[in-house]
Amino acid sequence: MEDEFAFISNITPKRSYQKTLVRGIGDDAAVYSGTQNMDEVVCVDTMVEGVHFRRDTLSPFQIGKKGLAINISDLAAMGAVPTYYLVSIAVPAAWTEGELTDLYKGMDELAKKYQMDLIGGDTVSTKDALVLTVTAIGIVEKGRARFRDQARAGDRLFVTGYVGSSAAGLDLLFEKSLDGVFTEQEQSLVKAHQEPKPHIEEGRLLATSSKRIALNDVSDGVASEAHELAESSGVRIVIEAGALPIHEAMEKYSRQRQIDLALFGGEDFVLIGTAQEEDVKQLQVIFHKKGLRFQVIGFVEEGEPSVWLKEEGQLKKIEKHGYNHFQKRG
Amino acid sequence: MEDEFAFISNITPKRSYQKTLVRGIGDDAAVYSGTQNMDEVVCVDTMVEGVHFRRDTLSPFQIGKKGLAINISDLAAMGAVPTYYLVSIAVPAAWTEGELTDLYKGMDELAKKYQMDLIGGDTVSTKDALVLTVTAIGIVEKGRARFRDQARAGDRLFVTGYVGSSAAGLDLLFEKSLDGVFTEQEQSLVKAHQEPKPHIEEGRLLATSSKRIALNDVSDGVASEAHELAESSGVRIVIEAGALPIHEAMEKYSRQRQIDLALFGGEDFVLIGTAQEEDVKQLQVIFHKKGLRFQVIGFVEEGEPSVWLKEEGQLKKIEKHGYNHFQKRG
Repeated sequence: MEDEFAFISNITPKRSYQKTLVRGIGDDAAVYSGTQNMDEVVCVDTMVEGVHFRRDTLSPFQIGKKGLAINISDLAAMGAVPTYYLVSIAVPAAWTEGELTDLYKGMDELAKKYQMDLIGGDTVSTKDALVLTVTAIGIVEKGRARFRDQARAGDRLFVTGYVGSSAAGLDLLFEKSLDGVFTEQEQSLVKAHQEPKPHIEEGRLLATSSKRIALNDVSDGVASEAHELAESSGVRIVIEAGALPIHEAMEKYSRQRQIDLALFGGEDFVLIGTAQEEDVKQLQVIFHKKGLRFQVIGFVEEGEPSVWLKEEGQLKKIEKHGYNHFQKRG
Repeated sequence: MEDEFAFISNITPKRSYQKTLVRGIGDDAAVYSGTQNMDEVVCVDTMVEGVHFRRDTLSPFQIGKKGLAINISDLAAMGAVPTYYLVSIAVPAAWTEGELTDLYKGMDELAKKYQMDLIGGDTVSTKDALVLTVTAIGIVEKGRARFRDQARAGDRLFVTGYVGSSAAGLDLLFEKSLDGVFTEQEQSLVKAHQEPKPHIEEGRLLATSSKRIALNDVSDGVASEAHELAESSGVRIVIEAGALPIHEAMEKYSRQRQIDLALFGGEDFVLIGTAQEEDVKQLQVIFHKKGLRFQVIGFVEEGEPSVWLKEEGQLKKIEKHGYNHFQKRG
């Protein structure tokens, strides 16, 4: 419990902002207080059964938890503090009431950690696949929200955690299914896929650091997110293959496979960004003190917006799109 | 154009609040300014193809327009001014790019009318039915939001427009399909179903009137919405059948059918509410001056939460649930 409180105090904005829910209205709407010192941040994401998740790789509890985590990660990428969320869900008859309850429990577990209130939503029936849409609302001190277009030549590229683990975990789930027997090492990869932890604390440290920082979250893989930073900022980004933080559970994988999973796997939900070299040193110290990861994985140059991989002295241009898990590997 | 401006000035809060979009982030998130004088209102609604709409009764343009209208109506029911919206859509391969563009055009047409900005969303693929989820954000002066639990014994029950028209229009569409030939009278019913007009101006008048008002919008039919008012407020509501505003295009229908469509049809998206008798008189004058409808259709009594229909001196208890169009009539 002490850790939990320390964590929460980290992410709460210092200017004594209190979120105030005026009231929720039935199932579909809510009223909450605005404030002059904060900007509001809102995100929405949709997960479709059979496209973004499958029932043989995620339990209903995990589907709910992940649906909210994806949105919290969007808030983290902007440096925001989560406040409220709304859930809209189209449910086919194949889902039991108990499974639907478990889905909501998964969201609730994560929401509690961030003191987010569920303030509305809509539950409707559908004939086919379950469709889960989460709207997440957050707040950030005026002018402190982080964006993707702040990368400049000379900056360092960083990530705030392991990359490739989620995709590796998904591969294991495809291989052995939800009820398979996993080694302890494999478990940590499976867990990275099933219950990713959004990097809100990391985003808050970056938002409140007074540095110029470009920021994004790793939802589609490092390659795709680096492309977004490069295109938004009009710069060339070089990723150093040897610097990518790969979880030790993937040590037995070939080097090529490790890098592929990191670059194109996606769903790691760590943060990726750029900052000036001198700021990076300070940030490393700050992150280290908090027991958080801050790993430099490349640098920013002038040039046509593009992303390159540097490996054993060789530079190779890498494409934007990671592959779709279910299409290429499912 | 003059009318349009007159309308907009009506719905803009007087305390010189300006909504300020800080910036949208790619496709999935946005930052906007909070303010101290206003509360924020947020709503979410989902429409599923084959459940909430069918392609033989609504064009893609109309599906988009209606998807947003439903949410704006939720804002209207709380007395809010619409500001922003986000669109999350799961699209099956059966939909062409052009049809999807038309769907967004439908939303855009309505959004322009209310000066709402599209600030984010998520477009994903699905194998089956299209699922459209709209999140709408609005603002209302602090303490002025209207709720459902404010009905008191002695109040009058009112609606702000025709009821039953949308369901009548849907019946005509089922009968003749989208390409059918409709008389001018029938057209007005079909239009009520396909392109409902949310009652934002009416909601704003009620929110700024300083009266005690209970409010809801008619999405599920007068019976269901009156039940929500009765249950939230702990009162008994009596609807006078003869007072229900029925569109002249339905004159040739039997009296029973008119009342059934009004009570259980739904999707009229007018407002339903209660106010004290003396306030009702003032509101009627204010609405009349603006050329808006304000029709008393019943009254509130003490008693177990319930809804009753009074017809030719007889009182009949009416159930909560309207019937589902597609199940019972499709």
